[in-house]
Amino acid sequence: MELLKNKILNEGEVYEGNILKVDCFLNHQIDCVFLSEVGKEFHRLFKGMGVNKVLTIEASGIAIGAFVAQEFECPLVFAKKTKTKNIAGDVYTTPVESFTHGTTYDIMISKRFLGEGDKVLIVDDFLAVGNALRGLIKLVKDSGAELVGCGTVIEKGYQHGGDKLRDEGIKVESLAIVESMNHETGEIIFR
Amino acid sequence: MELLKNKILNEGEVYEGNILKVDCFLNHQIDCVFLSEVGKEFHRLFKGMGVNKVLTIEASGIAIGAFVAQEFECPLVFAKKTKTKNIAGDVYTTPVESFTHGTTYDIMISKRFLGEGDKVLIVDDFLAVGNALRGLIKLVKDSGAELVGCGTVIEKGYQHGGDKLRDEGIKVESLAIVESMNHETGEIIFR
Repeated sequence: MELLKNKILNEGEVYEGNILKVDCFLNHQIDCVFLSEVGKEFHRLFKGMGVNKVLTIEASGIAIGAFVAQEFECPLVFAKKTKTKNIAGDVYTTPVESFTHGTTYDIMISKRFLGEGDKVLIVDDFLAVGNALRGLIKLVKDSGAELVGCGTVIEKGYQHGGDKLRDEGIKVESLAIVESMNHETGEIIFR
Repeated sequence: MELLKNKILNEGEVYEGNILKVDCFLNHQIDCVFLSEVGKEFHRLFKGMGVNKVLTIEASGIAIGAFVAQEFECPLVFAKKTKTKNIAGDVYTTPVESFTHGTTYDIMISKRFLGEGDKVLIVDDFLAVGNALRGLIKLVKDSGAELVGCGTVIEKGYQHGGDKLRDEGIKVESLAIVESMNHETGEIIFR
């Protein structure tokens, strides 16, 4: 998606430790006019496949998921990272290791919102080693729903999480795949 | 907003401890077609006031904020509840006491995304005692931005947080104000 690549080149910042900072338009301040276009692009990539539920994970995935679900005219469900008083009853849950933060957290979805008959498109902001996506995929499988595929806005190609998922037969579409970054020069090369 | 009141009556559930559960359409599973209408309604209520930034708090506020910001064609910024590696540099921060969970947490916004010249509309899913809104209002004031007003989807009128803010001269618009709930009968009465 050229619009995204241009935004990454113009507004993204590269930091030591393989950090690509795009919090000015994607995950802290959010450019909603741009995200509308992201929603339309994912709709183009996954339309005609019967998607009737979009699944993501809090917090950065929610705005993206909202615009994707708007295009599919279907509900968005977001997995929660912490147990709250307001989730009653049974949940699907699985641990996810955070590569970025070096911690493990549990994600959970109420069983009322995912199950047989659902055809699920998973979306998220970043795909690196793929731990968050694998956690979400496990919840989809545990629930008896059908996974249509995964859409991520930015994939860090050099961490190969997306390649491994594709090798396993999962349809993974990323709107930009970063092949390499150099924090000294700020250079970003796309696949 | 009649559409919202009908959804609360048809899909909401009342639990002991003043809990109104609307996680089937507002804050776990999200009805994005409905939230588009919520975005349009807040635009109607706050248009012509120069709003150039929508502010909310993770996680439940994000989807609502996204559809509001889409209508205003302006950025959404969401306050984070936890410090992450990816927020570098200076932040505006303040503690918020959670009435629901009985805990206190810090919220923060990068100073890069809020400041003088911004005319801010704060949105959130619920307004009860108003602690989260007050935290967000403090961040707006600390940043030198101008507060246009606050829009919440559901206000628990019997907890009077909204009334106190209005008494202080802040424009607070809630799309439904619950005056009383009865967890034994399930009855919900709107103001």
